[in-house]
Amino acid sequence: METEVYVEEETQPQVPAPTLESERRDSAERNNLTWHDMKLHRLQRAEHKLQRPCVLWFTGLSGAGKSTVANLVEQRLFEHGRHTYLLDGDNVRHGLNKDLGFTDEDRVENIRRVSEVANLMADAGLITLVSFISPFRSERRMARELLGTEVFIEVYVDAPLSLCEARDPKGIYKLARAGKIRNFTGIDSDYEIPERADIVLDSAASDPARLADQVMDYLKQWEYI
Amino acid sequence: METEVYVEEETQPQVPAPTLESERRDSAERNNLTWHDMKLHRLQRAEHKLQRPCVLWFTGLSGAGKSTVANLVEQRLFEHGRHTYLLDGDNVRHGLNKDLGFTDEDRVENIRRVSEVANLMADAGLITLVSFISPFRSERRMARELLGTEVFIEVYVDAPLSLCEARDPKGIYKLARAGKIRNFTGIDSDYEIPERADIVLDSAASDPARLADQVMDYLKQWEYI
Repeated sequence: METEVYVEEETQPQVPAPTLESERRDSAERNNLTWHDMKLHRLQRAEHKLQRPCVLWFTGLSGAGKSTVANLVEQRLFEHGRHTYLLDGDNVRHGLNKDLGFTDEDRVENIRRVSEVANLMADAGLITLVSFISPFRSERRMARELLGTEVFIEVYVDAPLSLCEARDPKGIYKLARAGKIRNFTGIDSDYEIPERADIVLDSAASDPARLADQVMDYLKQWEYI
Repeated sequence: METEVYVEEETQPQVPAPTLESERRDSAERNNLTWHDMKLHRLQRAEHKLQRPCVLWFTGLSGAGKSTVANLVEQRLFEHGRHTYLLDGDNVRHGLNKDLGFTDEDRVENIRRVSEVANLMADAGLITLVSFISPFRSERRMARELLGTEVFIEVYVDAPLSLCEARDPKGIYKLARAGKIRNFTGIDSDYEIPERADIVLDSAASDPARLADQVMDYLKQWEYI
């Protein structure tokens, strides 16, 4: 009782925020109601920014090049006047998720929170880039379900383990092989390859600039930008 | 060992994102390094949006008018072409923080996460509005420390309890008086009045439109917009 009522209190009665699927066709009828509750909605923020918000979810092994490509894509979008944000270990693991460790439970909670924040960022009208190994299909499925299929874009950065291990920019695979890190993705913990990623980037065959082109082409083709 | 190395792995080596205080004077020297690591920084995103990001933190009793004024301010900023986002019970309590209840510990964690997300939003260049009762000085201090004094703007929506109780738009004070809700702010849980709020809005003396003007004036005066 107590909890439920308190939640109610911090919650404004309002029309649910329209989803991308329905908002264009419904916006005319909804307009009065929307302005009555004075809430800005996703579509307004997005139109203001001349883009369709989405979440580019980069998944792949450590060393596959997720962050490098994600940073390049963000840079290009910025140069084209787009509004973006990149969520990764730098700004999430040390802040919002600093209370989480690496148990299975904490990993799920990590991805849940990242998904929720990405959802808020998309709601704010931003093209959001997420760069986490996110090795399990179940966690990526959770993100897709939470964000919706029109918003969630799975980007698989595909590189064979041997290549990632040869790159090993921080010597982390060496530590894993030496048994100094446990549960390391690709060594003693699985990476579950996406079965139907929206974009597959072949990190062994192309350089990061080409892979960034591929993502930009996708965004143009599907009219996110 | 395991944890630390894994965190390292999800973290790109980079220059720390410049703070608002230092970034203007340092940006010339830093530029090469910034572009080398290919990360977009707060200042670039903010300049792109022609605004200085900040977090307007609305605090006050239930029924004081926090959300009404915050929504009005957001609407005006939007009409002036500014880039904003509003964090409140609607989009936080049912999503990111849906695992949290109302124990003291959970309330602190609620505000911590809201602060962290507001920080990401400000980092994305947005003028962010936060509307939560946030009754305790300690939690607002935590938010101020996390966000920094240049970013955090405390907005106290001041209304006497008697007025809030008379308004009681959802009948929630009645329930609290009847003992059906416990730990309700203003009834059997304290609201600690801000000692030095950046903006004090007198909700008993002025209508929401005037209070929104007051916030807009502050943002202009301090050159956030």
